[in-house]
Amino acid sequence: MRIAVIGLGLIGGSLLRALAKAGHDVVGFDADPATGELARAAGFEIAGSVRETVAGSAVAVVAVPLPILPQVVADLDGYDGLVTDVTSVKGPVRDLMAGRRFVGGHPMAGKETSGFAASEAGLFEGCAWVLCLEPHGPDLGDWLSLAGLFTGLGARVVPVTATEHDTAVAQISHVPHLFAAVLAEQLLSNPLAGALAAGSFRDGTRVAATRPELIAAMCGGNWSAVHRELHRLIGELEQLAGVLESRDPVGELTFHLGRASAARRSWPATAGRPETIAADVQALLALGRAGGWVTEVKGRELVGKRPEPDRYLP
Amino acid sequence: MRIAVIGLGLIGGSLLRALAKAGHDVVGFDADPATGELARAAGFEIAGSVRETVAGSAVAVVAVPLPILPQVVADLDGYDGLVTDVTSVKGPVRDLMAGRRFVGGHPMAGKETSGFAASEAGLFEGCAWVLCLEPHGPDLGDWLSLAGLFTGLGARVVPVTATEHDTAVAQISHVPHLFAAVLAEQLLSNPLAGALAAGSFRDGTRVAATRPELIAAMCGGNWSAVHRELHRLIGELEQLAGVLESRDPVGELTFHLGRASAARRSWPATAGRPETIAADVQALLALGRAGGWVTEVKGRELVGKRPEPDRYLP
Repeated sequence: MRIAVIGLGLIGGSLLRALAKAGHDVVGFDADPATGELARAAGFEIAGSVRETVAGSAVAVVAVPLPILPQVVADLDGYDGLVTDVTSVKGPVRDLMAGRRFVGGHPMAGKETSGFAASEAGLFEGCAWVLCLEPHGPDLGDWLSLAGLFTGLGARVVPVTATEHDTAVAQISHVPHLFAAVLAEQLLSNPLAGALAAGSFRDGTRVAATRPELIAAMCGGNWSAVHRELHRLIGELEQLAGVLESRDPVGELTFHLGRASAARRSWPATAGRPETIAADVQALLALGRAGGWVTEVKGRELVGKRPEPDRYLP
Repeated sequence: MRIAVIGLGLIGGSLLRALAKAGHDVVGFDADPATGELARAAGFEIAGSVRETVAGSAVAVVAVPLPILPQVVADLDGYDGLVTDVTSVKGPVRDLMAGRRFVGGHPMAGKETSGFAASEAGLFEGCAWVLCLEPHGPDLGDWLSLAGLFTGLGARVVPVTATEHDTAVAQISHVPHLFAAVLAEQLLSNPLAGALAAGSFRDGTRVAATRPELIAAMCGGNWSAVHRELHRLIGELEQLAGVLESRDPVGELTFHLGRASAARRSWPATAGRPETIAADVQALLALGRAGGWVTEVKGRELVGKRPEPDRYLP
């Protein structure tokens, strides 16, 4: 199967390498000629335009940043193959792709470094790769094709709706960046805090060092989920403030923090034994909601794993 | 100089080792006979009671947890040597010690492991060691004695008031534990979040795995600073929520996050050149407020370092 990869940064470049290593016929393209040259020098077939890249390809993976996605999509007019993407927000991309043969994707892979020079064939081994499913579309056969392709690269394919994805990443990535930012900003008004800060501060604020325009684009791209989850988490902090104001703050706080502590100690969860999953939208979405994933696609039958139930209880 | 160390856990045990290595005459005590035996087997002189330990010692370091401190202090009645402690809250301990010859201390040293078995002579090398000073007491000579003792172990001695200390540790340690807890607790209601969570979640919630009774005791012991700083930081998050609701959320957010990002990238600060500090309470407190520390005590003259000014500006 011939696969086109558009955008050859860390994710696109790694995908080109991983797919080629798995025996697929791949062709790449990058709007930056220097990046294209790097990939060509690494032995890959590089096309001269988006249209030229996708011509004759069964699947096109668009691995460009969210702000550039609309213009690449316009260049795909007339292409009748299957399209997927790798951006970190799925609701807005689903809406952008309405009417096209499209399955939204998001590999949860990253490194401190970026660009084709940092790409590696093994980047997706063991990583969670979200592939979006909805009760009404996309085509389940298309979803299964991509699930088979990416599990073949060692990824754990997670079936979720776009909305569920956007809520989850707001919770575990986007809003935590805002938490880290307000903690880090304390250094400005209190230099003493910087002199006393140690390991818990270092780890808790690490992501605050991310370039501000990247955090802002991430949060802005997933606006409604970030806005909702930020307000919800502010409410949780206000509840802890209320606990501090109770008659027995230490006892009450011990009780309230017990659940969070047990949850964190059980993460990441150990999965149960492999199980057979029906190629059915609702069965797949139930697997994703339970924190599970697909490890293998055998025609219309899938193999999946899910965490032990109740594992987070104290 | 003979020094008594009461409580031989990670901090007390490491202090016993470090002081002995630096050539001091040390004697230890622990309420747990098994811990005392461990220390004796490691070659240390171990006394049978608090009174026996401090008899003949010029300095007594009380290295017991905060809840046990009052009963150890009662056992010090009649002792006229200099007393210091190592607990993580300084205002309440200052009040508890009123009328005694006491300088509050807090070495910012820790490890994942605890107890005498985990102790090591090198634990304090390079670590910040808070020693409290107030405009009206403790005695500056006593403060200088301890500053000399602990800089001799390689610690960076930070002069601050008890109130300044308690605010700073609420900002960089206690409240961040509560932030981590509300982020980690999300795993309970959304197993999907646990499947997608990666590095930013791992680091941002690491301290949520701490035993809940320890976090509760820490926050309860520093109640007023934790309560105030938690409310202030909730206000900062609400301000970010307001920025999200602005007409240009991405642009505005980029601007607001820029300061935090620059601050975090410049942390930990590189210090300027060594400078001479007068043995004067206000000069020392000004050094601490600027994020600086004492590296050496030479009689009534001190050597200190402080971070470059404005280093946190974007």
